[in-house]
Amino acid sequence: MSHEERVTDAELGAESIKDLIESYNLIGGFMARNLYDASRVLASMYSDPDVTVILSFTANLVSTGLRGILRGLIERGLADVVITTAGTVDHDVAKSLGGVYFKGSFDTDDSELLSKGIHRIGNVFVRREHYGPLVEKAVHSTLSRINKDEVGVRELLWLMADELDDSSIIKASKRSCVPIYIPGFVDGAFGTAILTYNEIQRAKSGGRRINVNVLKDEEEIMNIVYSSKKLGAVIIGGGISKHHVIWWSQFKGGLDYVVYLTTATEWDGSLSGARPKEAISWGKVKPEAKSAFVLADATITVPILFNYITSEVGFRKRNTGVYPWNC
Amino acid sequence: MSHEERVTDAELGAESIKDLIESYNLIGGFMARNLYDASRVLASMYSDPDVTVILSFTANLVSTGLRGILRGLIERGLADVVITTAGTVDHDVAKSLGGVYFKGSFDTDDSELLSKGIHRIGNVFVRREHYGPLVEKAVHSTLSRINKDEVGVRELLWLMADELDDSSIIKASKRSCVPIYIPGFVDGAFGTAILTYNEIQRAKSGGRRINVNVLKDEEEIMNIVYSSKKLGAVIIGGGISKHHVIWWSQFKGGLDYVVYLTTATEWDGSLSGARPKEAISWGKVKPEAKSAFVLADATITVPILFNYITSEVGFRKRNTGVYPWNC
Amino acid sequence: MSHEERVTDAELGAESIKDLIESYNLIGGFMARNLYDASRVLASMYSDPDVTVILSFTANLVSTGLRGILRGLIERGLADVVITTAGTVDHDVAKSLGGVYFKGSFDTDDSELLSKGIHRIGNVFVRREHYGPLVEKAVHSTLSRINKDEVGVRELLWLMADELDDSSIIKASKRSCVPIYIPGFVDGAFGTAILTYNEIQRAKSGGRRINVNVLKDEEEIMNIVYSSKKLGAVIIGGGISKHHVIWWSQFKGGLDYVVYLTTATEWDGSLSGARPKEAISWGKVKPEAKSAFVLADATITVPILFNYITSEVGFRKRNTGVYPWNC
Amino acid sequence: MSHEERVTDAELGAESIKDLIESYNLIGGFMARNLYDASRVLASMYSDPDVTVILSFTANLVSTGLRGILRGLIERGLADVVITTAGTVDHDVAKSLGGVYFKGSFDTDDSELLSKGIHRIGNVFVRREHYGPLVEKAVHSTLSRINKDEVGVRELLWLMADELDDSSIIKASKRSCVPIYIPGFVDGAFGTAILTYNEIQRAKSGGRRINVNVLKDEEEIMNIVYSSKKLGAVIIGGGISKHHVIWWSQFKGGLDYVVYLTTATEWDGSLSGARPKEAISWGKVKPEAKSAFVLADATITVPILFNYITSEVGFRKRNTGVYPWNC
Repeated sequence: MSHEERVTDAELGAESIKDLIESYNLIGGFMARNLYDASRVLASMYSDPDVTVILSFTANLVSTGLRGILRGLIERGLADVVITTAGTVDHDVAKSLGGVYFKGSFDTDDSELLSKGIHRIGNVFVRREHYGPLVEKAVHSTLSRINKDEVGVRELLWLMADELDDSSIIKASKRSCVPIYIPGFVDGAFGTAILTYNEIQRAKSGGRRINVNVLKDEEEIMNIVYSSKKLGAVIIGGGISKHHVIWWSQFKGGLDYVVYLTTATEWDGSLSGARPKEAISWGKVKPEAKSAFVLADATITVPILFNYITSEVGFRKRNTGVYPWNC
Repeated sequence: MSHEERVTDAELGAESIKDLIESYNLIGGFMARNLYDASRVLASMYSDPDVTVILSFTANLVSTGLRGILRGLIERGLADVVITTAGTVDHDVAKSLGGVYFKGSFDTDDSELLSKGIHRIGNVFVRREHYGPLVEKAVHSTLSRINKDEVGVRELLWLMADELDDSSIIKASKRSCVPIYIPGFVDGAFGTAILTYNEIQRAKSGGRRINVNVLKDEEEIMNIVYSSKKLGAVIIGGGISKHHVIWWSQFKGGLDYVVYLTTATEWDGSLSGARPKEAISWGKVKPEAKSAFVLADATITVPILFNYITSEVGFRKRNTGVYPWNC
Repeated sequence: MSHEERVTDAELGAESIKDLIESYNLIGGFMARNLYDASRVLASMYSDPDVTVILSFTANLVSTGLRGILRGLIERGLADVVITTAGTVDHDVAKSLGGVYFKGSFDTDDSELLSKGIHRIGNVFVRREHYGPLVEKAVHSTLSRINKDEVGVRELLWLMADELDDSSIIKASKRSCVPIYIPGFVDGAFGTAILTYNEIQRAKSGGRRINVNVLKDEEEIMNIVYSSKKLGAVIIGGGISKHHVIWWSQFKGGLDYVVYLTTATEWDGSLSGARPKEAISWGKVKPEAKSAFVLADATITVPILFNYITSEVGFRKRNTGVYPWNC
Repeated sequence: MSHEERVTDAELGAESIKDLIESYNLIGGFMARNLYDASRVLASMYSDPDVTVILSFTANLVSTGLRGILRGLIERGLADVVITTAGTVDHDVAKSLGGVYFKGSFDTDDSELLSKGIHRIGNVFVRREHYGPLVEKAVHSTLSRINKDEVGVRELLWLMADELDDSSIIKASKRSCVPIYIPGFVDGAFGTAILTYNEIQRAKSGGRRINVNVLKDEEEIMNIVYSSKKLGAVIIGGGISKHHVIWWSQFKGGLDYVVYLTTATEWDGSLSGARPKEAISWGKVKPEAKSAFVLADATITVPILFNYITSEVGFRKRNTGVYPWNC
């Protein structure tokens, strides 16, 4: 303890987000500390020219206005790869095609919402016709433009990007050449729309079914991972989008930088709640990696961390040599 | 409040699990109440001859000895369909082929575990050589026996069942004719083994790649859902295995019975933490459904609920007419 | 890892609570493990003739039917000292004097409850007139019977016991000579009734105010702690009733046995969520203590653990020499 | 839903904490929404000249550098009354008398910390000699200066303030005439030091014991509550310091403004996790009150909310007519 670092009284009067981050450093305990540590991991990661940064998040966040910040991360070069869940496609497409999401409440009569045709995501509402039908239309339209038997999921999303407006994460992904992967792509309106397209084609004389092959995406991820000098990850939330990042990272010797932003707890042995240290035992995170985790709702922590990083880093110059295509 | 039901002092002296359930009824509050309610939903569901029961769980549970109880649910007819995550295949195959899992600790030096070749899942440990290599071997061996270009995931798992011992969930799934679906099948050793098999085939002269097509599984699920009179679900944990059950249920007007067993909280807007009532707004659970949720570690609650149900229901007679094949 | 203990598949078919505990042992992971470990700590503690067992719990539990089990612990000799919060007195007195608590719901219109005169404790309801007025009446009546200027809180409760029926925790405490302490006694209807009694006395000519002095209780606790050979604790929930147990235990070199049953998480630095290991750094728990913690709602875990212990231990013979009075 | 408010994409580029708050408004969902709502409740409360603001927090926060911000709230007039736990006195006194707290870790060997004489509070460390002995010395010294038989807790703290430096919450409380109440005052080094002082006096010929009477504090709180036109509260964390605020508020018809900042969950029926709506059923919060709650670590949310409020409100002019003394 000879090099101990003191906990110091923070004072009111912070005005900028940068000041706020510095207050968390002074506070020095509990999750304020972890949040500060996360800011340091991110600052290191984004100043390392050799790292491929994987951004992972769960779909529920895309139903909120955090969507704009997630898109901004792609546009500003703060992500080299995106891995997310099927619902991200659903919400992103719905919003891109005019779907309106509004502020609702957890404490509602959901039977009444059903009768009014309103879907609820926590305390966010969206009308039924602003959701599924918009996704189905975009997917069917995109598939009908395809002239081959098989596409990968990322490939399909980039084709679909042409139908979306500039608010879209998927469109930003294509425009910025940041591939987006959905390992569980069948699990939502997006996947069901692929299925129904093919069912319709099957029923039609001359119909042409298109196989959407997620193993093609896996090959792409494998190539990117192997082509990278170092790996870093920002993992927001748990589930398949979290696991897929760390799963693949093990084949490159583990992540060099990682930040987990989550509400899930560790004690239940869940993958979602597992800390970076568990991943070390698997070789998914390097023992010497810079890592941090913050237990808090990402709608609170992401704006703090990434507005801070944006002010520090600005637009990041990416290393586009890691992709199996030209950017 | 004219029909109010009283909270009543429970007394020590309960001996059987049935007595325990009755104590929870008397206790009448907090999660004891929800656990009792869950027992009632399950009892109703399993006495309804018209319901197709979908069992969903996350892979981490399969690393514990809960695996035996989950297999038991399949063997005793208490599940008609299983939906789970890729790790379930990994742990189940590993254990079936001699992989030993042992009691570890959350509070460990994970770098030391790494150097000893031990993977950690919460407070469960497994040696590296008892995990990935066993899965890869089983998958490669199974794929090499296949004489067609494309299989579904469930189909592949049932083929792989022949290589597994009787402790296996996958083997029980085949033997009992209870299909098992893995919508995010690429996300683990199972998926990577498929990929590496195909990479090897690609490199080999005369090699033959096999497409594993999850859309085939989706068609099967769709058929089962549409063929069912009613739907019920036991959903243990969150993530893609939870969502996939309720996602498909909406196309049949929603679940008639549902029990969520989870540790995830609602306030973060997560899918994992969403209560049955949120699913009502989507039409994923019927407004008049019998439903319950219990916030507690499933390793605690599943043995209570399903030993109780087993003692009440014994072996359930299933309606096998819902499958697109003969059982 | 040479003495590793395996995780083993548990099988359906457990009938008794004892079988259930054994299943948790087989399951071997996550909180099932901790619950099994807690059963072992309790079994050791209750077979040690030298230990003084402190039982601590929060008041909300007394609003449920867990009250009967908590009383049973006192009656069966499974607690030598009780430390709890002010609300325990309120709920216990209210129920002892005919207050009816009934099954309610978290999802209610609380404004409507207010207008109907119903108080809510989570999903438990109680009418206003079944609560505060009953407590005030019992406290005022008891105080009016006291012929001295000052009493301790435990002393006052034992005097009040005469007004309560046999369902009461407080009455069992007196009858079984198991002192009950309320370090934050002012924080509820009990405390306010003491205050209003004295206000009334002050206003009355010839009125006689009675000081209720919690420092007298502290002396008693100090004496019991110092007179004990060893200390053990069952700590249900967090807050002041948890902290007070471990606080005093440090003056005897720390607890020799301890089980925490809680829902509170560690990562926020809360006392309520702190694990037994944190208490070791303070000398509140001995480094070599037998300890366990279970993260789950106590309304679920307490009936499992203590019905099991009751079946194993029966009525425990207590060492009553630790009290500063004759029992 | 005719007046629906939209969820809107937030964009990167926020620089000030005020911008951050506005981003949370745009994000519009999950806890970002609640955090924004909390900022609005606070803004309303602090612009209402008729409200008495009660600030409540748990002691663990005082071990971190959040102590400076909590003191700042008192100094800037943002609290009219403070209600907290005994540990607040301990940490505040220790720090005021030179106790150094430093950044530690949750993942430590607590037996080793014990042997090094280091206490752990989550991820904060303090040496043993920087804690208990400093508190005991201050309390004994203060008590020895008192020339009467009985003092209230608040009174004792204000006397002790003379021994503390300007970093102290207790000193700020006295200087700013913001009474501080500790309903569970016996539960920590502060309470034990009172007890040992009296034990020493008892043993000494001519020793003079001093009764510390918390019922005197209760009378003060009662007077303040009854003298107030409206009541508002900022309640950080749970336990007795939370409950005591809402308990007293019911006697004035309930809080008019309230913000809960907590990590505790509702589903276990805990007081700590209960939402403002539960308090409505008790008359502790008015049905028409402006209220919000944020589920997140207070070390993260308090700096956001109160730096924002400080920038908006500056120094608040307090209504000092509510106290039973002159300020």
